[in-house]
Amino acid sequence: MPQAVLLDISGVLYQDALPLPGSVAAVEALQSKGHPLRLVTNTSRLTAVEIHRQLTGMGYAITPEQIYSAPKAMRSYVQAQGLRPYWLIHRNLQEEFADLLEQAEPNAVVLGDAEERFDYAHLERAFHLLLAGAPLLAMGDNRYFHSRGALRLDAGPFVRALEYAAGVQALILGKPSKEFFAGALEELGVAASDALMIGDDVESDVFGAQQAGLLGCLVQTGKYRSGDEGKAPGALLAKDLAEAVQRFC
Amino acid sequence: MPQAVLLDISGVLYQDALPLPGSVAAVEALQSKGHPLRLVTNTSRLTAVEIHRQLTGMGYAITPEQIYSAPKAMRSYVQAQGLRPYWLIHRNLQEEFADLLEQAEPNAVVLGDAEERFDYAHLERAFHLLLAGAPLLAMGDNRYFHSRGALRLDAGPFVRALEYAAGVQALILGKPSKEFFAGALEELGVAASDALMIGDDVESDVFGAQQAGLLGCLVQTGKYRSGDEGKAPGALLAKDLAEAVQRFC
Repeated sequence: MPQAVLLDISGVLYQDALPLPGSVAAVEALQSKGHPLRLVTNTSRLTAVEIHRQLTGMGYAITPEQIYSAPKAMRSYVQAQGLRPYWLIHRNLQEEFADLLEQAEPNAVVLGDAEERFDYAHLERAFHLLLAGAPLLAMGDNRYFHSRGALRLDAGPFVRALEYAAGVQALILGKPSKEFFAGALEELGVAASDALMIGDDVESDVFGAQQAGLLGCLVQTGKYRSGDEGKAPGALLAKDLAEAVQRFC
Repeated sequence: MPQAVLLDISGVLYQDALPLPGSVAAVEALQSKGHPLRLVTNTSRLTAVEIHRQLTGMGYAITPEQIYSAPKAMRSYVQAQGLRPYWLIHRNLQEEFADLLEQAEPNAVVLGDAEERFDYAHLERAFHLLLAGAPLLAMGDNRYFHSRGALRLDAGPFVRALEYAAGVQALILGKPSKEFFAGALEELGVAASDALMIGDDVESDVFGAQQAGLLGCLVQTGKYRSGDEGKAPGALLAKDLAEAVQRFC
């Protein structure tokens, strides 16, 4: 039995804005068993407050503190390192980072899923800062995501563009980076080897968690595709979150 | 003695809009010796007509037909393959591709140095076409270029972004691709082994040419940096175009 549980959100708790069958009850069961819990996500289009509002709207009984998002991990890192970033992030996050946005002389570049702010002028500004030695930080390097039936470009392609242009490598502060899983576990005060990560993305959620020392569990909902389990040897497998919680928690 | 000569333009013929010392006379010498000649460039911000206008303005006695540019290579390829591309190119090239621009159902994506047209909406449109199976074609994959004292993002970073997003590999129809050098030599009717490529970019011009079967010559002007010759073993080396022509042509 794990001492703490990390859950991916999209494709595990809900799909197309509707909770997946049995998932609300499964989270309730985890909470009532007293498992320290974090919902972990790379989403950088929404604030934690908005994610919380959406999940409670679907019936999930969670607190805002139980959401550990890539933007939250980025804030901790930036403040711990005393960085003054140039922020290339979504307008929805402006409020969350309001106290850190204005930097007279940026010495870092932070990328989220900036959507239409990924344009030539903003990318060139970031490129010049990278050439001057600023580190490149990103909230995930996902290729794309599903939204209302369409695939949308995520931050990953723009991370690759800037890495190639400036000849640098980004530090990713989202799944599947070890730093990200470690940050979530630090909040819970639990060692990686005592924690279970449940997700539908075999690479980012499951294999990433295994690489960070956690136990991984792949659920066959969301973006799961038949055969994915082969990419994370040793991972647990469950049909959905309800079964995963029932069998492994 | 080579039967044909290919010359890079920027950094070999001119720098900062001024002809390099001895280069005008060197091109004159090549022409008077009767060497079949092509000026080869990945520039996709300018039409061949405009490049010709600039070079003749600097005193170069060349014809428009002697310029072999990545856009020209792209046009040949697109027409030979009967493709209907979605064009993500610079506004300066709109005129050059006017007869091919409007495509009702694009079945290919063509990238040049599109400058401010590299925005989220255009890239996402290209991404969706790639997911539907359209091939990705690019006029070079250069990281950046110098312009009026500043470094500007070239097409390469956006090629990488789309390759990563869609999980595809681009066909590059500019230096250093074999197809590009072969296209220039085909116009001249000369075999690769009988041709000499002179350039200042050790990777794109010189090593690329060597890989395509040409003899390569690196000149120590333009973007040349001390030690570059180590990256193209077997290449000829000259201080500038004047010396290269005098010694090797």
